[in-house]
Amino acid sequence: MSKVRVAAFSVSLDGFGAGPRQDLNNPLGVRGLELHAWFVSTEAFKKMHGERGGTRGIDNDVAARSFENIGAWILGRNMFGPVRGPWKDDSWQGWWGEEPPYHTSVFVLTHHARAPLPMQGGTTFYFVTDGIESALKQAKDAAAGKDVRIGGGVSTIRQYLMASLVDELQLSMAPVLLGEGEHLFNGINFPKLGFTSVERVPGELATHVTIKKG
Amino acid sequence: MSKVRVAAFSVSLDGFGAGPRQDLNNPLGVRGLELHAWFVSTEAFKKMHGERGGTRGIDNDVAARSFENIGAWILGRNMFGPVRGPWKDDSWQGWWGEEPPYHTSVFVLTHHARAPLPMQGGTTFYFVTDGIESALKQAKDAAAGKDVRIGGGVSTIRQYLMASLVDELQLSMAPVLLGEGEHLFNGINFPKLGFTSVERVPGELATHVTIKKG
Repeated sequence: MSKVRVAAFSVSLDGFGAGPRQDLNNPLGVRGLELHAWFVSTEAFKKMHGERGGTRGIDNDVAARSFENIGAWILGRNMFGPVRGPWKDDSWQGWWGEEPPYHTSVFVLTHHARAPLPMQGGTTFYFVTDGIESALKQAKDAAAGKDVRIGGGVSTIRQYLMASLVDELQLSMAPVLLGEGEHLFNGINFPKLGFTSVERVPGELATHVTIKKG
Repeated sequence: MSKVRVAAFSVSLDGFGAGPRQDLNNPLGVRGLELHAWFVSTEAFKKMHGERGGTRGIDNDVAARSFENIGAWILGRNMFGPVRGPWKDDSWQGWWGEEPPYHTSVFVLTHHARAPLPMQGGTTFYFVTDGIESALKQAKDAAAGKDVRIGGGVSTIRQYLMASLVDELQLSMAPVLLGEGEHLFNGINFPKLGFTSVERVPGELATHVTIKKG
């Protein structure tokens, strides 16, 4: 059955999903990249970026599976880019170059309308201004029976979680302490939201947990 | 060199070190016991309680090492028992029966004076009413060059952390979501307190991390 999933989302020991002060030089916030050390070392990641090599263990399996059976993505605006306020022009086309690693429709939550942006490799960014439920409906239609992946960032995941619209979260707990940044867990009571099952798979560089409704 | 250590302290994925509503039936708060599933299954734990059997893998190594080279313990009053306010009498002697698993001097933080309580097996509980620094000084003296272990609970560990009196924390991240309870990390910025090194050892049922100053 089609699911709404969070997958391969890295979280620090102290619960942060991104560092503070995101900008052009720190797409994941200051020190945010450290959360993803387990991911960037994998073959799956390197392949996505047209490179060879990379690790082939458990971390790689988790990375690869996070891209399987995904029919559409939803991203928060800050995950799409550092631009704030109205779009001045079409010059910002995401962090990922001409061929983003999505290869599906990607729905970007924003308060500011913008025409769809088709990229190479099958990715088209659609800018959704009428809220998270509308974005999810559009993503489910586009996914045509496959899963919808909530890519992030933290604020977007929290909004979907608190609206009870997420079926499954696969988080990758990185052995990193950030101390500040965007906190994924604060004020979120997972058991109260119905998430009572935790499966744990220790990888080489992170511990992967899958959180499901009971 | 003698260290002030937190060791084998279990924390949920969402950062709780104990469940809510501690009482006589829930010494670790509601669902708090689930945090310790990795520990209670080990041979080290069973031996402590005069039982045979138990697991002998990585979790057991971590459990056993947490008791090595400890010369004195410090506990918060709630870790010693569910009694609140002045001690009515000497009837409460801790959660652990006649022979507690400490076998050293144990300094219990409390606002209410009480005479030292010697138990079988070398444990003596001393009740310290003049603050965490005094308790640490007494514990260091008693430890005579060995380490002082801050046993918990969460509030006690947080107080010593924020006073920069802890050298090393070994936390065991359990694949459990509590949603509520006593939060270990909230408002604590580990890197700012000088803790920049994280070593990770995945065990059978929990992921053990050791947090040290850089």
